[in-house]
Amino acid sequence: MSAQARRRYVALTDGYLADVHHAKTAHGVLRYGRDDVVAIIDPEFAGRRLRDVVPSIDRDVPVVASMREALAFSPTSLLVGVAVSGGELPPKFRAHVLDAIDGGLEIVNGLHQFVTEDAEFVARAKTSGARLWDVRKPPDDIALFSGEAYGVPQIVTLAVGSDCAVGKMSVMLEITAAAIAAGALAEFVATGQTGIMIAGKGICVDRVISDFVSGAAERLVLGVAADTEYTFVEGQGSIIHPAFAAVTYGLMFGSAPDVLVFCHDVERKTIGDGEFDVAIPDLKMLCNLYESTLAPIKPAPCVAVALNTRNLSAAQAQAHLQQVQAHTGLPTDDVVRFGGSKLWHAVRAAGERTPKWLALRQAARG
Amino acid sequence: MSAQARRRYVALTDGYLADVHHAKTAHGVLRYGRDDVVAIIDPEFAGRRLRDVVPSIDRDVPVVASMREALAFSPTSLLVGVAVSGGELPPKFRAHVLDAIDGGLEIVNGLHQFVTEDAEFVARAKTSGARLWDVRKPPDDIALFSGEAYGVPQIVTLAVGSDCAVGKMSVMLEITAAAIAAGALAEFVATGQTGIMIAGKGICVDRVISDFVSGAAERLVLGVAADTEYTFVEGQGSIIHPAFAAVTYGLMFGSAPDVLVFCHDVERKTIGDGEFDVAIPDLKMLCNLYESTLAPIKPAPCVAVALNTRNLSAAQAQAHLQQVQAHTGLPTDDVVRFGGSKLWHAVRAAGERTPKWLALRQAARG
Repeated sequence: MSAQARRRYVALTDGYLADVHHAKTAHGVLRYGRDDVVAIIDPEFAGRRLRDVVPSIDRDVPVVASMREALAFSPTSLLVGVAVSGGELPPKFRAHVLDAIDGGLEIVNGLHQFVTEDAEFVARAKTSGARLWDVRKPPDDIALFSGEAYGVPQIVTLAVGSDCAVGKMSVMLEITAAAIAAGALAEFVATGQTGIMIAGKGICVDRVISDFVSGAAERLVLGVAADTEYTFVEGQGSIIHPAFAAVTYGLMFGSAPDVLVFCHDVERKTIGDGEFDVAIPDLKMLCNLYESTLAPIKPAPCVAVALNTRNLSAAQAQAHLQQVQAHTGLPTDDVVRFGGSKLWHAVRAAGERTPKWLALRQAARG
Repeated sequence: MSAQARRRYVALTDGYLADVHHAKTAHGVLRYGRDDVVAIIDPEFAGRRLRDVVPSIDRDVPVVASMREALAFSPTSLLVGVAVSGGELPPKFRAHVLDAIDGGLEIVNGLHQFVTEDAEFVARAKTSGARLWDVRKPPDDIALFSGEAYGVPQIVTLAVGSDCAVGKMSVMLEITAAAIAAGALAEFVATGQTGIMIAGKGICVDRVISDFVSGAAERLVLGVAADTEYTFVEGQGSIIHPAFAAVTYGLMFGSAPDVLVFCHDVERKTIGDGEFDVAIPDLKMLCNLYESTLAPIKPAPCVAVALNTRNLSAAQAQAHLQQVQAHTGLPTDDVVRFGGSKLWHAVRAAGERTPKWLALRQAARG
């Protein structure tokens, strides 16, 4: 299937559909992807509709128990739609994947464990003609960071945050959508498996050899469409995450942002929800730490705070947003609930204070 | 050749022998390695002795022009002794490596470009029986960081610094030697190719997939001999190096140090000696940035400054050391020139202020 053809996905979430952490790949594609999702395989919720299980996603998709049932919806591709710790294929997923391969479906896999390196999958795909695509496999020819990223004409915004899985990708997608709605030429840059499935391109930076992470991030910001004015880079991890900070820092330094948007889940009190004994510090202090870290290299201010308030009532959420806005002194919003417009304005205003902005205006007039 | 057998190395530096940056692998093994080095191949300096070309290394090794001449010294192994940017084998090294393979010598290679993935090398080695060892190839089974490193009984010291190639490995080796000389049970932990060649074990953390860098560092500190009291971890890069900071941060968070030793080359004014337009900031400010970065996770103080003053006179060096010591308020020395004793005392004093120390004392009384 060509990169431009529209897929008809079956999303495989067996047991994880209602789990916002582990099914974030499936949820992201369902919420933001350009492709169709014709069915979801999850026996636990079979017979229900997506919106009954995950009310926050406004797509009507049937949930079925097996690949056999899903085939009735004429799918082209199977989306392996979970992101479990360690990145391995959950054992019960294996039979579904084999069924899909035997049915000739393309397998689109975002896990660390590659389907293209699994002898059984490869052999069965050879027989059926199914295509295997490991989204996390980075290109072979990533160069070391060169500094060329410092010269890109676009105003580059990077999502940073307090932890993994606080909503950085969604924040960048929502602000990109708001920028485009406001008439700006904006592009979302994907750095993780879900983002790549949504955007159709990108590099999983956490899968890149550590020496080359900054080089991978640089390549991504150099690769946006030439007429782009605002680049929105999907962030990864957190500078205080003991397991994944290497990825975060490599992305920060390699993408050479002009502007940061700080993302946080209001319910998150410790890194990895207690996986490590690391408390998330005061948000203003953490924003300052991001700025201090970049200051010796290429300074970039935190210009907005994006909060994930999904389990608060609308009134509670607004009160919380007000409180964080007062405390940090930065425009604060939940862009998934209330749209990306407010934070887009904050980014645009900050962009207009960078030296790049005048050149962009001149190019636009050109 | 077994891990315990003593090698008789030929070091290959063709053109780089006098270059402290690019020949740092060869220099490190010559200065600190437990193995013999029976000859150096470098046509530019052929006919001279090592100490005439690199006076700071107190080993007497002949320099020859070719592998053919080197074979007269009955070597067991060829050391590929350069570390060039990008990590590729310099083209003129190829013929020397082939000659060594044909002579049945083990090839010990620290470059990114693996000899075990070069079809010609592999075929010729198959014929001659030569062993090919890519020191930079990390193990296949590195786990994600688990937090287990927080529980190691040893007092862990990590070398940090202002840039790459300022002497972090040598500093840790000299302080380890001083600790052992003072009767402590100390182990050096190697994280780069030269260190691994010196120590006989370790992981090249910069070659590990970025998600797993912290896990690799954790595995290294968990892997020291059980009776070790002080672990000295070779540092990598700098938190202000735009290309390599991902490695630095992963190593910092994964090794979970109790104590930091800050390393700097007094002649270095910008990152990569001008490769990037990033000035090295005030050293005290940079020490503070290291501490601020670790503070939210596991705090570790900078307890000493190790300066590389190799091109200053002894009097100039002493004046500079005094000045930096007064400015930072930290014990400061050039451990390569003046020995590791002073900084070892600073580490030991800091170790005695950690909660681990009492447990170590009790275990020693055991």
